[in-house]
Amino acid sequence: MPHLTPSRRLRRTPYSEKVEAAGVRAYTVYNHMLLPTVFRDLEEDYHHLKESVQIWDVSVQRQVELRGPDAQRLLQMLTPRDLQGMLPGRCAYVPIVDETGGMLNDPVALKLSADRWWISLADSDLLYWVKGIAYGYRLEVLIDEPPVYPLAVQGPRAEDLLARVFGEEVRRVRFFRFGWFDFRGRDLLVARSGYSKQGGFEIYPEGWELGRPLWEALEAAGTDLGVRAGCPNGIERVESGLLSYGNDMTDDNTPHECGLGRFCDTQRAAGCIGRDALLRVEKDGPVQQVRPVAIGGDPVPPCDRFWTVRGARGEPVGRIGSAAWSPDFRTNVAIGMIRLTHWDPGTRLEVETPDGPRPAEVQDRFWY
Amino acid sequence: MPHLTPSRRLRRTPYSEKVEAAGVRAYTVYNHMLLPTVFRDLEEDYHHLKESVQIWDVSVQRQVELRGPDAQRLLQMLTPRDLQGMLPGRCAYVPIVDETGGMLNDPVALKLSADRWWISLADSDLLYWVKGIAYGYRLEVLIDEPPVYPLAVQGPRAEDLLARVFGEEVRRVRFFRFGWFDFRGRDLLVARSGYSKQGGFEIYPEGWELGRPLWEALEAAGTDLGVRAGCPNGIERVESGLLSYGNDMTDDNTPHECGLGRFCDTQRAAGCIGRDALLRVEKDGPVQQVRPVAIGGDPVPPCDRFWTVRGARGEPVGRIGSAAWSPDFRTNVAIGMIRLTHWDPGTRLEVETPDGPRPAEVQDRFWY
Repeated sequence: MPHLTPSRRLRRTPYSEKVEAAGVRAYTVYNHMLLPTVFRDLEEDYHHLKESVQIWDVSVQRQVELRGPDAQRLLQMLTPRDLQGMLPGRCAYVPIVDETGGMLNDPVALKLSADRWWISLADSDLLYWVKGIAYGYRLEVLIDEPPVYPLAVQGPRAEDLLARVFGEEVRRVRFFRFGWFDFRGRDLLVARSGYSKQGGFEIYPEGWELGRPLWEALEAAGTDLGVRAGCPNGIERVESGLLSYGNDMTDDNTPHECGLGRFCDTQRAAGCIGRDALLRVEKDGPVQQVRPVAIGGDPVPPCDRFWTVRGARGEPVGRIGSAAWSPDFRTNVAIGMIRLTHWDPGTRLEVETPDGPRPAEVQDRFWY
Repeated sequence: MPHLTPSRRLRRTPYSEKVEAAGVRAYTVYNHMLLPTVFRDLEEDYHHLKESVQIWDVSVQRQVELRGPDAQRLLQMLTPRDLQGMLPGRCAYVPIVDETGGMLNDPVALKLSADRWWISLADSDLLYWVKGIAYGYRLEVLIDEPPVYPLAVQGPRAEDLLARVFGEEVRRVRFFRFGWFDFRGRDLLVARSGYSKQGGFEIYPEGWELGRPLWEALEAAGTDLGVRAGCPNGIERVESGLLSYGNDMTDDNTPHECGLGRFCDTQRAAGCIGRDALLRVEKDGPVQQVRPVAIGGDPVPPCDRFWTVRGARGEPVGRIGSAAWSPDFRTNVAIGMIRLTHWDPGTRLEVETPDGPRPAEVQDRFWY
């Protein structure tokens, strides 16, 4: 694995020292910030995540804050998801599209109050698009990146751990909702969400100085639960079909191609910038779409570029953007963008990996 | 040095295989793409760059293309630099600012023709800001990221090497100008520019498939010149005072704070989005500004976070964003953002490095 040269441009987080003390082995870079990728090894981290509870430094999920009378109007311009009727205290996965319907980011939006939102970003400088649109339309809204450093607690024992730190009330927070919980005299936003299918929460402390005590409180409270430092796991997230912006989709792709049509209410999303393009897509249907793909053979090497997918006659019919060997399912799990001629479950394909061609098959669902 | 986990999201380039074959030791991530940082070691690479000629994969300098009747109007909205009278075939360093005068990027713009520009980016998704503004103002302009993968040839022997590949005519290209030169039947844009003070060129091939033959042609033609694979060098660029967006400045800083006032013609830059804010800055003057700072003692560790700079009474007066030990100047060279009370050359300062406080001094110029 290559080395990463440190620089101020690849920002550290309030948790970096804890992450280093926990023996982080590798990082990726995400929103100009360090995101841990491996602690012990990918498989050991994977098993632990599925059995116990982990603390994740996901500060890279930068927040774009919208505040002011036009905050909701602006957010509705950005996404085809209908935000009318959404209440404060709710989270919503909101595909963000440009005027052609191409995806610019796939964040989770948190409605803090009627005129205040956080957009919790995937890996692109969405702040620039939001500011540009607000400026062009002269909207009454303040936009910035507040000093919020999300910490995720993921795994089957996450709820028990959080109840020890924030009280039993935290168990009543439902999926994709959030509440405010006291931590040393400060109100922290705690949401039931996170980038795994193992259950858990994301905590959104405001201010650098809260980071370290929060980490330490979680660590101390969870010793007997087996809590460890962890991070989004490259095997578990592919098994679970959690898409990664930049890996599985780019600004070339519509939400419908990404299988996110259920998050689009394009007819009702009046004002959405990509509305015209997406109405057309909904009429015609996408010609390629994200699919779970099982790849045969030994564990595949890291998927660091698109792998071409071919049909029976060798013709290109798609590409793989993420892949990993799954210890639990004893196969290589992968996320592909596959043409409609070949996207039915059971379709036999061939994937060009760096090691040579491999047999593959479209699955009817992800592995969770 | 930590490891970097490969993924498709950290894009490879047409030159990645050549870079790997040349023994790259480390990368950084820049515009969601891999940028080599070290080949042999930082000091050996440094000496070689200053004595010979290197081929650099700078594909990370993504191009934003503006094409159409409003292309120049749009670019003028983005920058306080006056673009009137700029001719095709010229390059211009253009600070890009938002409505508060905060810097969003510091790219080089290339004027290809009256209605066509490339903006060669530093590390931020400026595409999103440009698209947002164009959409908000309903401008007649097409905006995209074309498949251009810049290759830099830097070092005192760069001109000799380029003359062998592109012919003697290339010697007549003046600084920050470009011409079109034949390479195997294709016209390539060749500019005299680059992210070092050692002289050289940047070549902008369009299309992935040109990359490898171009690299190989340069390598083959320069064997006796000592050509090697290289990359922007963390020592040389600090000595030379070449700023790095994200290290030395962020969107908090105005061009004037960055010492880029000479690239601002704010009075004349009618339509520039940050004009009002920058007129105010020009009237009042900045209260902090980029300065070369020499840091005493042994070689400093990597500058992976802002180092606080203090005055004689221990008061904070600025921060260091980049620093390195200079073998040629036998001191630690650094780029600081220093308050006006302490920015005069000769001012004694103290810098908080991870190893403890160090004496430091404001210099009257960078080290080239």
